[in-house]
Amino acid sequence: MEEFSLITSLVKRLPAPGADVLIGIGDDAAAVRTSGQPLIMSTDTMVEGVHFLPSTITDYNLGYKSLAVSVSDIAAMGGKPLYALVSLAISSDWNEERLGKLYDGFAEVTARFGCHVVGGDVVSTTGPMVITTTVIGEADKPITRRGAQPGDVIFVTGRLGGSSAGLETLMQQSAISPTGQAALVAKHQRPEPRVSAGQFFAEVGVHALNDISDGLASELNEIAAQSQVRCVIEAARIPLQPEVKEQARSRQADPLSYALYGGEDYELVGAVPARTFAVLLANAQLLRVPITQIGRCETGDGVVMRHVDGRLEVIEPKGYNHFARASRAGSR
Amino acid sequence: MEEFSLITSLVKRLPAPGADVLIGIGDDAAAVRTSGQPLIMSTDTMVEGVHFLPSTITDYNLGYKSLAVSVSDIAAMGGKPLYALVSLAISSDWNEERLGKLYDGFAEVTARFGCHVVGGDVVSTTGPMVITTTVIGEADKPITRRGAQPGDVIFVTGRLGGSSAGLETLMQQSAISPTGQAALVAKHQRPEPRVSAGQFFAEVGVHALNDISDGLASELNEIAAQSQVRCVIEAARIPLQPEVKEQARSRQADPLSYALYGGEDYELVGAVPARTFAVLLANAQLLRVPITQIGRCETGDGVVMRHVDGRLEVIEPKGYNHFARASRAGSR
Repeated sequence: MEEFSLITSLVKRLPAPGADVLIGIGDDAAAVRTSGQPLIMSTDTMVEGVHFLPSTITDYNLGYKSLAVSVSDIAAMGGKPLYALVSLAISSDWNEERLGKLYDGFAEVTARFGCHVVGGDVVSTTGPMVITTTVIGEADKPITRRGAQPGDVIFVTGRLGGSSAGLETLMQQSAISPTGQAALVAKHQRPEPRVSAGQFFAEVGVHALNDISDGLASELNEIAAQSQVRCVIEAARIPLQPEVKEQARSRQADPLSYALYGGEDYELVGAVPARTFAVLLANAQLLRVPITQIGRCETGDGVVMRHVDGRLEVIEPKGYNHFARASRAGSR
Repeated sequence: MEEFSLITSLVKRLPAPGADVLIGIGDDAAAVRTSGQPLIMSTDTMVEGVHFLPSTITDYNLGYKSLAVSVSDIAAMGGKPLYALVSLAISSDWNEERLGKLYDGFAEVTARFGCHVVGGDVVSTTGPMVITTTVIGEADKPITRRGAQPGDVIFVTGRLGGSSAGLETLMQQSAISPTGQAALVAKHQRPEPRVSAGQFFAEVGVHALNDISDGLASELNEIAAQSQVRCVIEAARIPLQPEVKEQARSRQADPLSYALYGGEDYELVGAVPARTFAVLLANAQLLRVPITQIGRCETGDGVVMRHVDGRLEVIEPKGYNHFARASRAGSR
């Protein structure tokens, strides 16, 4: 494949950029108009055999997911994604047809979340496929991990644990219903970056926010460490995707471990003053995502979980790597 | 190596960011202040064994070069580099010490060209090392490849051909003086992005600009095609790095082929009205880079080179890949 003709054929898969793109793909660099608001930028790299396997994700969904995870980072800052750059180190088993499907997946993300791919690079590699996505957005008041205060409500969006349970389903036989399996696999392969919710959280003054890429345990520990607070969560309040419970039952596993240590749910977890939390709840329907209080910030440090029997468990910042070594090749 | 501690140790190698970096490395995404001028953004991926070899470049210079080539793309738009993101897919033969040297090379680029590394990703790969650099800058009036007009002077910065001659020196025995070899190798390993010159070119109204990553032949053909002009260059006017002539003589090769097809010189080639070209010449000393007229734009298409004997040669857009297949693994 010749670089220029390949790029031309792939770029055709993408929606035409808007008027804010002054110079798109095809020059030394892209040029875009911005409003002068603070820029938000993030980059993610996914490697075949480390972060994904052809057996656990289609090329289309891989394109969707690899760009969606960078969009999720922008959402986690309360930002609006605007532009994306995509770099591919292409292994010999990826032909133009497969790359086209990958780009169709990128195109879905850009269309749904209102951003544009304005550049990138395609090179060949003798090793596994490597996909690097960079997303640039704007946020008037970016939300960090360090603003949580004692007394704040800790909340999450959506239902947790589905992604790692979905990966488990893909890597091993699953005993649950085909519909249940499909729901879990969908959560794993097609995460939903919470872009509108994140922007709303920034507007109303959420104190701290993370997207759940490495599991709730890891993300909450980051908020606790950066904000210098103690996060106390209630086991009974953690909202699990219903099929996760089914999967855990069939495997005699702890359903909460999927939410705490599984990762890749790409929901948001944040800390917010109680009064403002009421505003979030009142708008959950408008934002089309469940919002659930799972605990409170206190003075102190670390993360603890109160079990239904009152027992307190210290939640270490262990993430996916420690959760399921056997299926490490399938996720991140 | 654990991801967080590795990132912490690598980030210490970088200069502290300025006040325009609102949120640096360590959150979901970086947040930076900008002026509201158009943003310029570019990304490049380099793969070990395809674009570089440990035998042809030190880890430090690899860091320098991989970020410098993205800075060069910003220069080619007449832009000012501001922020960089660096993603690494790390192969097993890269330890923390080697990565530290790579980051020291990044640090030199950010210090010299006034930009900051504000984010990135580090992941492991079972294949060769993959380095993706993204640079974001600003340009009031970005210069494309499409503005050249008949009558425009075609000019280049610096002296050409040194990079590919340097690579040749590294890949094969060279018969020229050690000093000559060192000069060529330096051009190959430590290209000098023409950032100040590019910004000046934008200010005074240069019509079209490219950086020479794939060789003069390829870059001029892009300007000709995008601007719908014919580029007529004079063989006798192409400024060669002096050691290139020495190297060519020792190999009985055509010295111009290094400039035309060698690539990776990362000088700038542009088209400018004759009156404005006089302004460029008058400022060359201030910009600390030679500026040389090599030809003119005419009506028509394609690129032709007039030899000293008056003969006209059509210059095809062949670049590095076609120049030296044997040493393909060393460059791009």
